[in-house]
Amino acid sequence: VIAFGIVSRPGEPRRVGLRDGDVIADLAPLGPDFVAQSLNLLLARGQTAWAEAAGRGRELLDRGDHVLPLAEVSPHLPFEVADYVDFYSSREHATNMGRLFGRPELLPPSWLHLPIGYHGRAGTIVPSGTPVVRPRGQTREQGAGRPELGPTRRLDIELELGFVVGAPSRQGEPVPLEAAREHVFGVVLVNDWSARDLQAWEYQPLGPFLGKSFATSVSAWVVPLPELEPFRVPLPPQEPEPLPYLRGEPWAYDLALEVELNGDVVSRTSARHLYWSVEQQIAHLTVNGASLRTGDLLASGTISGPDPASRGSLIELTWNGAEPLTLSDGTTRTFLEDGDEAVLRAPELGLEVRGRIEPAPK
Amino acid sequence: VIAFGIVSRPGEPRRVGLRDGDVIADLAPLGPDFVAQSLNLLLARGQTAWAEAAGRGRELLDRGDHVLPLAEVSPHLPFEVADYVDFYSSREHATNMGRLFGRPELLPPSWLHLPIGYHGRAGTIVPSGTPVVRPRGQTREQGAGRPELGPTRRLDIELELGFVVGAPSRQGEPVPLEAAREHVFGVVLVNDWSARDLQAWEYQPLGPFLGKSFATSVSAWVVPLPELEPFRVPLPPQEPEPLPYLRGEPWAYDLALEVELNGDVVSRTSARHLYWSVEQQIAHLTVNGASLRTGDLLASGTISGPDPASRGSLIELTWNGAEPLTLSDGTTRTFLEDGDEAVLRAPELGLEVRGRIEPAPK
Repeated sequence: VIAFGIVSRPGEPRRVGLRDGDVIADLAPLGPDFVAQSLNLLLARGQTAWAEAAGRGRELLDRGDHVLPLAEVSPHLPFEVADYVDFYSSREHATNMGRLFGRPELLPPSWLHLPIGYHGRAGTIVPSGTPVVRPRGQTREQGAGRPELGPTRRLDIELELGFVVGAPSRQGEPVPLEAAREHVFGVVLVNDWSARDLQAWEYQPLGPFLGKSFATSVSAWVVPLPELEPFRVPLPPQEPEPLPYLRGEPWAYDLALEVELNGDVVSRTSARHLYWSVEQQIAHLTVNGASLRTGDLLASGTISGPDPASRGSLIELTWNGAEPLTLSDGTTRTFLEDGDEAVLRAPELGLEVRGRIEPAPK
Repeated sequence: VIAFGIVSRPGEPRRVGLRDGDVIADLAPLGPDFVAQSLNLLLARGQTAWAEAAGRGRELLDRGDHVLPLAEVSPHLPFEVADYVDFYSSREHATNMGRLFGRPELLPPSWLHLPIGYHGRAGTIVPSGTPVVRPRGQTREQGAGRPELGPTRRLDIELELGFVVGAPSRQGEPVPLEAAREHVFGVVLVNDWSARDLQAWEYQPLGPFLGKSFATSVSAWVVPLPELEPFRVPLPPQEPEPLPYLRGEPWAYDLALEVELNGDVVSRTSARHLYWSVEQQIAHLTVNGASLRTGDLLASGTISGPDPASRGSLIELTWNGAEPLTLSDGTTRTFLEDGDEAVLRAPELGLEVRGRIEPAPK
């Protein structure tokens, strides 16, 4: 599996690299678009250019020409994020959230009819390895009259897959489901860090804001979409049948995903558990005429499977703190503590997204 | 009152213009940053550079040097939008929405404690004058089992003021209330077009998405913040007193605002009715460590006053369609019809944002 990224060596400008395992090809010989701060110039050029760049990069890798050990380069944020949309496309995750918060209907009213999503903060997306400072914010204890300001006590991870938009679309022209894939450059792994207590206090009626906006981590590498072909499997059945604009090839990806906390794997799941496909997400996002831009990030929402050990967030894995996890060092966790390191992995794609929690500022 | 924008004449590159009434000074003589697709290079340079550009632009205007009639240039989107945050800072508006939807508590639980906001779609922000295509989307009639796809039947305006961030801040470092103004370049007028039926069906639990994302219009001109000084008035009293990080100089702006529909003024209000100040919005937005970026747009949310004729949206002005407006041509309106033109104005600032509704695509 190959992947594109932005890399540099000390004293040299950033450039596009094509990774294959432990080595990367420096794609600077492909032209001036490949000596760049981000992949966006390549992303904007569309499918034919992406395939050509991958092909020429593979030739360099095969020939050992302009090839470097991965360990010798520093990776950077791979693309400049335009709009960041976070979906809510795992049925098990949405159902768990309904159960945890005692909602009479486990799924929101429109959940089975459309891929629910919202816009996140694009400006605080950081590459794997960036430390995450515990956010402060307003919370209100149950039963307390007044809120207080302080560090979150319920800092969580969210294991997500993210699709990166390459070719833009025009405002006012919906992208039909059949054409959606043409716009997708590739896939990253996403940790949508969440402060559950901030979110609970602020989210009515306009959705998450400070509970999510402090940081979102993405893998430093973007796997081009054609590399996912071997992992295609049918989507879970969709009942009720969605409206015609959301009907089409029902593909998911059987990609193994795991969550590691301080060296212990605490969850193993698969992207096949997603209910809505990226094609459906794009057809929905644009049906009102909204355009896609180069660099849009479409994240899946937390991916959870049916098995309790396949849940993609601590709030689910510990059932809102009621069932702490025991780590191999004998300590227990409900939510993240300062110094904890979370690593999300998609081993088959060679993707990881890593982040260590730093204490809140005084 | 002066204002910055991006203008062009046929066959010439876009450049920064400084407007004063019916004339503009072409700021290209100020340097290469002033021949640009957007104001962002200037925005990033900070307060001193903004004051210098305004001063040198005024000199050109005074001398009649590089000055053109406004009518001879085409204005463009004035800045490249980084993140678009839409607040909900008018108490009258939030209360009206609570009443209209029969909520037991008129204001959401956290409303009086923090400036509620959410992220909108930055990629579909368009300049004044851009036609707005009636969006299609999923809606579900009350009592109906299944949703349907079709053009919105409840297309609305939202009259808002928007602050444009110039100087960025660093991730992990909250901007204290006292320093917030240093980051604000200026103000635009915003029409946050809304499809109420799409929004009602989709918004639980993550907030508005397709109901807002099809288009947001901004004025072509950005009035620099110092120009607002003469309009400063005390904010309405804040009870309960907010937490310390939100306490400070409690300024609002007594700026007249109006909504014109097909040539009839249907609402007159003032920005003084906002409950939360832009300084409070910035202190809140960054208290969790989220950064500001050059080009962030912070919109106020719909501005409504206490008088029914001072409401900033049709859903309020017509009380959810129960009390249609009668226009001077004898027709009535609940929500927008195809061909309707809405114009929002801040006459004292010379700002307007205009848009005509085009029919939904077949």
